[in-house]
Amino acid sequence: MSKPVASAPAKLRFLDIHSYLEASLAEVNQALNKFLPAEKKRPATIHKAMRYSLFAGGKRLRPALCLAAADACGGSHQDALPLACAVECIHTYSLIHDDLPAMDNDDFRRGKPTNHKVFGEGIAVLAGDALLTQAFEIAAKAKGWARYPHQTLILEIAEAAGSLQLIAGQVVDLESEGKKISAKDLRYIHERKTSALLRCSVRLGGMSANCSPAQLEALGNFGYYVGLAFQVIDDILDITQTSEKLGKTAGKDQKAQKATYPSIVGMDRSKKIAEDLTKKAFASLEPFRGKARALEALAEYLLKRDR
Amino acid sequence: MSKPVASAPAKLRFLDIHSYLEASLAEVNQALNKFLPAEKKRPATIHKAMRYSLFAGGKRLRPALCLAAADACGGSHQDALPLACAVECIHTYSLIHDDLPAMDNDDFRRGKPTNHKVFGEGIAVLAGDALLTQAFEIAAKAKGWARYPHQTLILEIAEAAGSLQLIAGQVVDLESEGKKISAKDLRYIHERKTSALLRCSVRLGGMSANCSPAQLEALGNFGYYVGLAFQVIDDILDITQTSEKLGKTAGKDQKAQKATYPSIVGMDRSKKIAEDLTKKAFASLEPFRGKARALEALAEYLLKRDR
Repeated sequence: MSKPVASAPAKLRFLDIHSYLEASLAEVNQALNKFLPAEKKRPATIHKAMRYSLFAGGKRLRPALCLAAADACGGSHQDALPLACAVECIHTYSLIHDDLPAMDNDDFRRGKPTNHKVFGEGIAVLAGDALLTQAFEIAAKAKGWARYPHQTLILEIAEAAGSLQLIAGQVVDLESEGKKISAKDLRYIHERKTSALLRCSVRLGGMSANCSPAQLEALGNFGYYVGLAFQVIDDILDITQTSEKLGKTAGKDQKAQKATYPSIVGMDRSKKIAEDLTKKAFASLEPFRGKARALEALAEYLLKRDR
Repeated sequence: MSKPVASAPAKLRFLDIHSYLEASLAEVNQALNKFLPAEKKRPATIHKAMRYSLFAGGKRLRPALCLAAADACGGSHQDALPLACAVECIHTYSLIHDDLPAMDNDDFRRGKPTNHKVFGEGIAVLAGDALLTQAFEIAAKAKGWARYPHQTLILEIAEAAGSLQLIAGQVVDLESEGKKISAKDLRYIHERKTSALLRCSVRLGGMSANCSPAQLEALGNFGYYVGLAFQVIDDILDITQTSEKLGKTAGKDQKAQKATYPSIVGMDRSKKIAEDLTKKAFASLEPFRGKARALEALAEYLLKRDR
């Protein structure tokens, strides 16, 4: 079998990733709008706050990965959408809480004031809580299969979002501020803050399509490596690119004395790590023998970017 | 049939509520200890913070109601315990977040410093998030029945804890601070801040015992009225009793200009409302024809207290 890393671009002729992302974003937004309580539903404040962050212009990468995984396993977007939306609710809640003054203390996200700047800290905490709770409500409404009953779907999400994964990453990140940390600890943070939920998104997409255990394993590996590679590349671009090109403040990590791959292992080694992780992400899709085209295209888009 | 209100005390001769509460507290603590990640598990900070509040001396009333409901339906505590623990995790998370400076800004709870006073605000937010997530993980590990699959159990919890119930109550409470509100609005808050999770606890206990739809309906009504009555009585005792007797600062509501039943409808009318709700709570158990002894005893304990 030819290496997916080399063969992927050829296949992409048939799948325009920008159209794919645009179409899945529209599907996901429509579904989220349906799943979330209406903005005017009492108490309006909380529903406004939930929707403010949920519809603040996110790229819906996690839902797109979930839908693409369903595609790879011959499933339907209809079956994958509730799980894609659940993951996006988890992602958005984590951003709202991460932005709080007691955490990263960010005033802006995607060029808009953060949730607590608009609604106040109390409501921002509650909006995050509500989105986290909403995620499980939506997931419980997904289609279950004998092989992947709701029990399995809920555990998949709860474990990825829990105190040993997503929250663990945020805790260690918080505790590492201004400290020198090892490459091993940085990987611990990235695995949990970024990889865990990406891996979960991809696996849930497979589950929604009643995938085989072998496919699920492959999807999990793919999500894990894509997540890690994505974060290393982010660290690199923060240094090598201008703010203009990135569309956000470059050099922010250095300024905040945040531990990054380049600051710990150097730029050359970071580029090598990103390359290796990217290769492993593509190689993980080998069992799909070229049928995981949307996933390959998404990986291509996320990992070979220069901004 | 004799009225449960009058008949309950006679039956209670055979059930010592203090022994029942003590035994169920021990069962619940043991189960929670088993379900939660070990304190030393990395990152230790978050697991210490989660356990600090979870084992801060709570009376485990919600879990006791869940177990007692299982008893009433001929179920086992073993089947009810995961759901009882899930509800206690939700309750504890809501207390941690409610105590935050951006919300009620409380420094002490049950005589101990609040979570954020010990671990800092960032970790307190994350500890709440982790307990909320943990609740769904534990619930997913409960036993499901054909009539009450995991889908139903998760929805029951997510709806009671979500933006239309528990969180709605906290939002409107937060927004009402220092304002004059109507008796209707106060009831809206109490229904959501107190009743929703009590109702959920009782219903989950019934579901764990594969109860009949009629039993589930009765349990839901019981939980709803117990929750409301409990809160009205709390408001009354805050005024009529001394701090010494209550074991907490009396008159706290008045001092904080918090809307309460006595402040809105007067003391006499409040007592009448509490009495009516208590009657309705006991009457809800009529379909059990005297077999809901632990539930009756718990209601007796919660609603006829003078402190």
